[in-house]
Amino acid sequence: MRALLGAIERIRSEVCALHAELTRNGLVVWTAGNVSGRVPGHELMVIKPSGVSYDDLRPELMVVTDLFGTPASGEWGNPALAPSSDTAAHAYVYRHMPEVGGVVHTHSTYATAWAARGEPIPCVLTMMGDEFGGEIPVGPFALIGDDSIGQGIVATLQSSTSPAVLMKNHGPFTIGKDARAAVKAAVMCEEVAKTVHVSRQLGEPAAIDPALIDALYARYQNVYGQ
Amino acid sequence: MRALLGAIERIRSEVCALHAELTRNGLVVWTAGNVSGRVPGHELMVIKPSGVSYDDLRPELMVVTDLFGTPASGEWGNPALAPSSDTAAHAYVYRHMPEVGGVVHTHSTYATAWAARGEPIPCVLTMMGDEFGGEIPVGPFALIGDDSIGQGIVATLQSSTSPAVLMKNHGPFTIGKDARAAVKAAVMCEEVAKTVHVSRQLGEPAAIDPALIDALYARYQNVYGQ
Amino acid sequence: MRALLGAIERIRSEVCALHAELTRNGLVVWTAGNVSGRVPGHELMVIKPSGVSYDDLRPELMVVTDLFGTPASGEWGNPALAPSSDTAAHAYVYRHMPEVGGVVHTHSTYATAWAARGEPIPCVLTMMGDEFGGEIPVGPFALIGDDSIGQGIVATLQSSTSPAVLMKNHGPFTIGKDARAAVKAAVMCEEVAKTVHVSRQLGEPAAIDPALIDALYARYQNVYGQ
Amino acid sequence: MRALLGAIERIRSEVCALHAELTRNGLVVWTAGNVSGRVPGHELMVIKPSGVSYDDLRPELMVVTDLFGTPASGEWGNPALAPSSDTAAHAYVYRHMPEVGGVVHTHSTYATAWAARGEPIPCVLTMMGDEFGGEIPVGPFALIGDDSIGQGIVATLQSSTSPAVLMKNHGPFTIGKDARAAVKAAVMCEEVAKTVHVSRQLGEPAAIDPALIDALYARYQNVYGQ
Repeated sequence: MRALLGAIERIRSEVCALHAELTRNGLVVWTAGNVSGRVPGHELMVIKPSGVSYDDLRPELMVVTDLFGTPASGEWGNPALAPSSDTAAHAYVYRHMPEVGGVVHTHSTYATAWAARGEPIPCVLTMMGDEFGGEIPVGPFALIGDDSIGQGIVATLQSSTSPAVLMKNHGPFTIGKDARAAVKAAVMCEEVAKTVHVSRQLGEPAAIDPALIDALYARYQNVYGQ
Repeated sequence: MRALLGAIERIRSEVCALHAELTRNGLVVWTAGNVSGRVPGHELMVIKPSGVSYDDLRPELMVVTDLFGTPASGEWGNPALAPSSDTAAHAYVYRHMPEVGGVVHTHSTYATAWAARGEPIPCVLTMMGDEFGGEIPVGPFALIGDDSIGQGIVATLQSSTSPAVLMKNHGPFTIGKDARAAVKAAVMCEEVAKTVHVSRQLGEPAAIDPALIDALYARYQNVYGQ
Repeated sequence: MRALLGAIERIRSEVCALHAELTRNGLVVWTAGNVSGRVPGHELMVIKPSGVSYDDLRPELMVVTDLFGTPASGEWGNPALAPSSDTAAHAYVYRHMPEVGGVVHTHSTYATAWAARGEPIPCVLTMMGDEFGGEIPVGPFALIGDDSIGQGIVATLQSSTSPAVLMKNHGPFTIGKDARAAVKAAVMCEEVAKTVHVSRQLGEPAAIDPALIDALYARYQNVYGQ
Repeated sequence: MRALLGAIERIRSEVCALHAELTRNGLVVWTAGNVSGRVPGHELMVIKPSGVSYDDLRPELMVVTDLFGTPASGEWGNPALAPSSDTAAHAYVYRHMPEVGGVVHTHSTYATAWAARGEPIPCVLTMMGDEFGGEIPVGPFALIGDDSIGQGIVATLQSSTSPAVLMKNHGPFTIGKDARAAVKAAVMCEEVAKTVHVSRQLGEPAAIDPALIDALYARYQNVYGQ
């Protein structure tokens, strides 16, 4: 029990702090984006409260819910705040992708522009090969309010190496082994969305041989970093 | 009387502080944008002084005027500053739209680019459905100096769910139940203006069924936030 | 003499501080832009030293020169620094346009992009009518090293209401009654260069009747501000 | 020996601090860019550790390696961190271009967009003439993991006046007499990549006579600055 309380406190701090990366990297305006994290080993997740400004976020305002998005009862000191309106989508991902420890949703400009056309981002950059292992795929149009968005995310990501999916007419969702990795995927998704957009404005980017993309991806996932 | 003084002090602080959101969100350069707020229950409004840098704004420099834009007499401690050159347009809105408590005007880049072509922004993003309930409409070309701008704003917004209008060759005006809501509309207007612009640069965004836009709008206006 | 020393100290402070507006408004990278100011009533000007980072500027590092760009002798406490490599162009403007009290040169992105095509920016925004009174004109291609750039600036601006000229393949130069006004013109020049660029990417902006542009310009130059 | 330790300490401080210029100038997101510097007079270089956030960099975390990219033995107080995954490319440059004292690699948006098309940036700006002396060339597609990238950089730069090369589908590498000069080249490379991109979006930039480009380059390399 004390271990669980400690884990919740740690995930609350991490999820809260990571929202600052969304603003710093220009991925969100006003309150239009959210980060969540799974509480490892428990059927719980932590997510941003709905409609609260990024400046006003504090760890104790992060909402603890079960994996159906229902706020956990008071024992975790939940604030009197509703969780993000996107909570159902996050929760669906955690229920169906046990390897996922973090989920991020934004409407970052360039990724959302590809999503509005319903067009995947082709893998024409070595950094895309490294991070995404191929194109960034498009998920179906889905209305908020039930599990449609979550189902679209999971169905698309389970058949892809990409940790990012562009939900049609909506925007990107990204996943990671923890919340920080999902935020990194959101940052890289917008960066490659912008770079490939800019490149295509003046002509067609050169394709990269799929075998070389596979080589880049395998190396980066295994070798990069400390 | 004391209540009115308190209300004016509160609106002055709010209107002053909200100008920082215009700069933070990159909606304005130099002095080219302004926020106003109605003093609830009185025939008064509070607006930015003309030509003063955002860095130099302080609550007591905000100008109190009647709803024809005439600075209120000295009893409210008005500064010796003329109100924004756009005051007549703000005042016209308050006179003709009693539900409006805040008005914002900017020349934010992407919204103004649509305005220069006189082209409404099509609703191809779920976030546009949420916030605007459809396209962002264009108002007529109108010269500053009389009620032409105010008339164009009101005529356009009264037949739309959108809280934003793109005045032709000029720029966006936004409204809200209070000044903060009008600023949020200005931020979201620029964000969707940019995203839809970027999307259309490489093809045609996918349309969203109008019935689904209505569903998004109804839900967001009633459910979102705390 | 004391009055002159005071005037130089004041212009040095002003010119130094205004460089921060260039960086804040994203008009310059590294050391690629400069501000100068005339010392009123004297055949002297104050300008940025060459190749010094904006972070390292201090008032006493600003170089005092005569109106041919020659650093004034030591009595004004000149630093042991060469003046900006663009000094000759600034000096030429002061010699030939006595009403000018400030000059700014940048390579701001969008203005320079129009300059690279040698294409004037059409007046399709009311804010352009206000500030520029018409299109922003293009000056000739000119090499650095003699009076060619200065001659091109003066010849172009003397036949225009615009305080900004786009020197071909080079970038904008702006003028004003003082250094601050020239900086404002540089900021507004980049803003309208970007907005009109963005607008034209998806179609042709609507023209504004030249008589209405004249009306906007006359009003703004006489009425705006305090 | 004491002199060498002092030199390493100085280069570590310089290389560390210069990473802040990458973020300040918007050239990098997350950890996707790196700076290195040669230790003058020794077969050693200093480079960013792999996968460490820019916020967390401190001089003592910079990794000292030999000119084959192998971390130097403990006597220089090396951190227990692997050097950047791009170390082999930096090292190859130092081995084959003795005049180079600094190398920078980024994936800055506009330069990388040109690289994705495999298209050199034409010299249509006087500031490009000054800094690059002509077009910014494209290097071959090369996989990370051996000397392919380094060979592509050196082969391309040795036949060009440009201190920047756009590695195909990858991004820019820049060189300089020291790390600061290489960072300046990276900043200017992105700036001209963006400006020429924007200019070409609405038409063809005007060409500059190659003889005039040579004149600009010769003057700038010899006269500019203090």
